[in-house]
Amino acid sequence: MTRAEAALPAEFGLIARHFAGHDAGPGVVLGVGDDAAIVTPPPDESLVLTVDTLAEGRHFPPDAPPDAIGHRALAVSLSDIAAMGATPAWALLALTLPDAREAWVADFARGFLELAAGHGVALVGGNVSGGALAATVTVIGHVGAGQALRRAGARAGDRLYVSGSPGEAAGGLATWGTVAVTDDRGGGAGDTPARADALAALRGRYLRPAPRVALGCALRGIASAAIDVSDGLLADLGHVCRASGVGARVELSALPGSAALAACFDADAREALVLHGGDDYELLCAIPPGVEADARDAAARAGCAFTAIGEFTAGDGIRVTRDGTPVDIPDRGFRHFD
Amino acid sequence: MTRAEAALPAEFGLIARHFAGHDAGPGVVLGVGDDAAIVTPPPDESLVLTVDTLAEGRHFPPDAPPDAIGHRALAVSLSDIAAMGATPAWALLALTLPDAREAWVADFARGFLELAAGHGVALVGGNVSGGALAATVTVIGHVGAGQALRRAGARAGDRLYVSGSPGEAAGGLATWGTVAVTDDRGGGAGDTPARADALAALRGRYLRPAPRVALGCALRGIASAAIDVSDGLLADLGHVCRASGVGARVELSALPGSAALAACFDADAREALVLHGGDDYELLCAIPPGVEADARDAAARAGCAFTAIGEFTAGDGIRVTRDGTPVDIPDRGFRHFD
Repeated sequence: MTRAEAALPAEFGLIARHFAGHDAGPGVVLGVGDDAAIVTPPPDESLVLTVDTLAEGRHFPPDAPPDAIGHRALAVSLSDIAAMGATPAWALLALTLPDAREAWVADFARGFLELAAGHGVALVGGNVSGGALAATVTVIGHVGAGQALRRAGARAGDRLYVSGSPGEAAGGLATWGTVAVTDDRGGGAGDTPARADALAALRGRYLRPAPRVALGCALRGIASAAIDVSDGLLADLGHVCRASGVGARVELSALPGSAALAACFDADAREALVLHGGDDYELLCAIPPGVEADARDAAARAGCAFTAIGEFTAGDGIRVTRDGTPVDIPDRGFRHFD
Repeated sequence: MTRAEAALPAEFGLIARHFAGHDAGPGVVLGVGDDAAIVTPPPDESLVLTVDTLAEGRHFPPDAPPDAIGHRALAVSLSDIAAMGATPAWALLALTLPDAREAWVADFARGFLELAAGHGVALVGGNVSGGALAATVTVIGHVGAGQALRRAGARAGDRLYVSGSPGEAAGGLATWGTVAVTDDRGGGAGDTPARADALAALRGRYLRPAPRVALGCALRGIASAAIDVSDGLLADLGHVCRASGVGARVELSALPGSAALAACFDADAREALVLHGGDDYELLCAIPPGVEADARDAAARAGCAFTAIGEFTAGDGIRVTRDGTPVDIPDRGFRHFD
């Protein structure tokens, strides 16, 4: 304990008040309240482990609603589990708070726990301490031995698919500072109602991304590789290409369109958002040609759009074409420390 | 990506440069480099899961050596695993850094990885992002089904044992600001060599606590309850008493002595450090009377001191005695948000 810690308000029980009772679930032997949690994994399954941090001012704006921060903190880790084709089971939450902020924690917990419940994830442990506002979430999932979707499995000739409408979340973030913030609602005094609705839709996609867990599970045994788009579509496609030792071609005319983006951005800006935005946490997948119909069926069952936007090729590097003609796209992507 | 993030130096590869090659180990199917790690747990074992955060200025002084911060960040989570009597296997590290600080990360990684190697722990994943300096470490261990040491198992009549020399780390921290800091060496211009050596020893105990993993494992099937002392001996004893529905008596004359503490603090200060300091991460255990010899043998095999300091009693509450006579000890303990 440093002297700084001693000056913090004593708030034993903050976690108990807002997170208690959500540590039960399949395999949970002992939840919150001991030195560590105890869980029993399903027999003959491998475990899939991931951790991600959201820090205020880096990964969410200071005026983001706390329940959205809670949702998003869990969503980014669930998305990693989804990209492996695994089933999430247990989560641990490490929260650092600059002060006790009871109401903030209540809202954060609501957003976190609603998403957890929706995916059958038990919050089996955690830690709250003083510090700059940040949430680090560990999620442990499981998958049959040898069944996980890896980045390294793409082969030349595989088709390149992306889920959902990538770019919308980045559009929501890009317009964050330009309009008045009223909870999730976009729209300033000068906006038309249609544009205000579009801004609200984009902002909602940024604040509450839907991790593609059902899609990832449905693509087990079908996709040859998968990654979640967190750094940007082209940047993450580059990760798959490098891991798999292949190249890729992306056809701009095939990218999924978005009415909400169209209401708020010109064509060039939209293209940049789709190619470089990563905040939607969509899945980018390699699908062997013989199982494209199976993949489309799996996506339909999982309830999300799934669009062919190119293919993997021999060699290395990513080519971008518009109606088949090569175009130059400057490299960008989310810069962080890893 | 917020605008703040875009201003950070691009440091792809920071993790790869300093943490790479330490993700192999028992059960590791896929380490660092994909969306998530894949591990195979030992059959018929339960998993033990814990997470802890160290934040600069809260859990370590800003001038603590980076390799010690790396050691300590892993040690506090290993200590939770030890307190469950489990074997640690895999770790995930989420590091937030205010800037790229290459040399700092190299030192941090060295301290972290040396301790991990000493315990056979593979660092299978992680995340580095911009933010206030903090390290959040998840450790996953395993233990035979039903064999974990819990807080709730203490019974009236069980003897109360503590490992090591509690209070030394708190003594190191208490003198942190009072003497010149030269790496781990205590001692200012006015100190005698003996006192300078004692201060260095105390500081080393604070900076590089030794998680009692071997002791925890050796006490499986012997101890009826265990906890690691992170909030302070009396505070954590209170956690065991409440979980177990028993009381306890602590005999002051039985507390382990420390030559290093004796060289730097008077008797009253030493007693307060032993009773309320938690930074050593020693284990506090309930040992049924019939297996005390087994417990002492187990501790000897684990290579650490193990001292009977009282017993668990019927009823509730903790009584402190000096040579059998009750004394009043004001309640203190580490205040945080959980």
